[in-house]
Amino acid sequence: MSEASASPVFDRAAIAGVGLIGGSVALGLRQRLLARHVIGYDASVEVLREAEALGVVDEVQTSPGEWLRGCDLVVLAAPMSALAPLARALAPWLSPGALVTDVGSVKAGIAAELEALGVRGFVPGHPMAGSERGGVTHAHAGLLENAVWVLTPTDHTPLTALSRARALVEGLGAAPVVMPPDAHDALVATVSHLPYLVSLALTHMVARDERLSLLAAGGFRDLTRVASGDPRMSRDMVVENRAALRDALARFRRQLERLEADLEQPGELLMAASEGKRTRDSLPVVRRSLLPPKHDLVVAVPDKPNQIGVVTQALGAAGLNIKDIEVLAIREEGGALRLGLESAEDVRRAAALLRAAGFEVRGRG
Amino acid sequence: MSEASASPVFDRAAIAGVGLIGGSVALGLRQRLLARHVIGYDASVEVLREAEALGVVDEVQTSPGEWLRGCDLVVLAAPMSALAPLARALAPWLSPGALVTDVGSVKAGIAAELEALGVRGFVPGHPMAGSERGGVTHAHAGLLENAVWVLTPTDHTPLTALSRARALVEGLGAAPVVMPPDAHDALVATVSHLPYLVSLALTHMVARDERLSLLAAGGFRDLTRVASGDPRMSRDMVVENRAALRDALARFRRQLERLEADLEQPGELLMAASEGKRTRDSLPVVRRSLLPPKHDLVVAVPDKPNQIGVVTQALGAAGLNIKDIEVLAIREEGGALRLGLESAEDVRRAAALLRAAGFEVRGRG
Repeated sequence: MSEASASPVFDRAAIAGVGLIGGSVALGLRQRLLARHVIGYDASVEVLREAEALGVVDEVQTSPGEWLRGCDLVVLAAPMSALAPLARALAPWLSPGALVTDVGSVKAGIAAELEALGVRGFVPGHPMAGSERGGVTHAHAGLLENAVWVLTPTDHTPLTALSRARALVEGLGAAPVVMPPDAHDALVATVSHLPYLVSLALTHMVARDERLSLLAAGGFRDLTRVASGDPRMSRDMVVENRAALRDALARFRRQLERLEADLEQPGELLMAASEGKRTRDSLPVVRRSLLPPKHDLVVAVPDKPNQIGVVTQALGAAGLNIKDIEVLAIREEGGALRLGLESAEDVRRAAALLRAAGFEVRGRG
Repeated sequence: MSEASASPVFDRAAIAGVGLIGGSVALGLRQRLLARHVIGYDASVEVLREAEALGVVDEVQTSPGEWLRGCDLVVLAAPMSALAPLARALAPWLSPGALVTDVGSVKAGIAAELEALGVRGFVPGHPMAGSERGGVTHAHAGLLENAVWVLTPTDHTPLTALSRARALVEGLGAAPVVMPPDAHDALVATVSHLPYLVSLALTHMVARDERLSLLAAGGFRDLTRVASGDPRMSRDMVVENRAALRDALARFRRQLERLEADLEQPGELLMAASEGKRTRDSLPVVRRSLLPPKHDLVVAVPDKPNQIGVVTQALGAAGLNIKDIEVLAIREEGGALRLGLESAEDVRRAAALLRAAGFEVRGRG
């Protein structure tokens, strides 16, 4: 995936907006020898000074100008609400041959915007990576490695631009997934923006009620976790994608109405519940890696002190690598740990080891 | 909480339905010396034989009869769909002075049922404890310790019966919470049954679509986790509580409609998002213990092998007890671990220790 040979070499790259993502792209371009010279452009002089001090960029610019004409790669990496104004400011200076891309999490609007601006070499993009620790100080090339990076060409996107964008993404160690802007926006509306709004609605239902929080078990906490993300970022995403989100809301309401109707038809509801379980259990675990840790082990832990420590230390001592760990929060699963290991063989070894230590174990190696 | 002195002593206790909960109550009654003689009654002879072999009960009965008249405690512990028929079968034999309670997860129906049967000493109950490993083989007294155990007296419940039920719950090491049946059913509809239906609806939206599961990040997995619980148990709960669930659904729809309308009023939506975050962040972590682990530590883990092992082993080696651990699944929080420790002092020690080991740490001791 990251063979320099398979990578395009850009001569001069401009990173417009040197934050967590922009900075990580800049570092990736330099560390993986994808660009000979990386220029950072940002509205904030402090940010540029920091980027230079951290060696994220070779050169900084504080305003658009002639320097852009020499860039054969331009990455728009400002916060989503600032992307369109940024594009308008840079458009007059862009070289016709430059590959231009962005990193916004909603695509249809920005795609139309740059088409209207007549930027031919634009390929809208969405690297599905991030961190709760923002800013260029936390930027690192590894942030983008193995991340799904959606590219959303339009009918007017030149195929040469798309193939260069795909090579750029692969060169940075990420996994390109190509689909039209509307398809992308509909998908993220369903898997990301609708769940956020649902989570927010559920959260508001328990506001200012102590009795509710006493009874709120793991299930409720799971369903409202995304509501504790950054309010402004979440707000900007759902507002920008409100058209697709409304469609998703309509489909969600129909599903919910069908289930409510099934409350009078227990047989139907049982089938719906069973189908739901099958679907949920078949969802891949998508974390930093595209390879889901299929090698899971569930360990029943008695209600005694430091059981998590005992389990993890036993595996660590045996040289077994714990890729993922989860305290199963559904109340019915009480004191149980899910461990993600590297291989079926590791699962077998860990299971034997933990059983010998007196733990009850269920594995799917 | 579990002082034998504070406990009532029952002479003969009948456990009707010797499964995970019934068996755990029986074991608690015997181990905590709350009852002199515990009789197990179940429809299944195999279950009774197992209960006897495991020493869960002193005596078994396969059908209602004279033996019930001598019991001063009767616990109805059958699956929810079987509770009413069970109550009708036992009612004719119950002593007027007996304390009768049940363990169903929905209360209004069973409360009315036993009132209609004229069982005066009945106190409806709901121990909020369970395990994914059902049956008497997995029963243990510890299952009920520190669990919230809701008692839902009606206007006709004798106060003496309520105080005996409260003493029973405390004697078993659980925490009694008293409220009317309707209030209980409304609360669990909001925090448990509505979230289940919402989760099921979301799950159905991604059925048979590989692209969706590729993009489904931690947030979506969190919101659909409860949909992977046992379909029949979940179905029975929501059907039994459908009246309260419909009210919760109506309130949920109003919340969702308000948020959808706010998509046109970004200012309003930002306020709603911020209030939601405040509410969610103030939810206590309710697991087996009523004391939420407030002493959390968030550790940023680089994308390298066995980082979870390195962290947990470092704390274990220092004698620090990890009460809870969570891989923060929100994509924005990438490689971060949340550790629940025992005290602010432990958080300070762990933070110092991990920083010395080169980890980035944020604590709230």
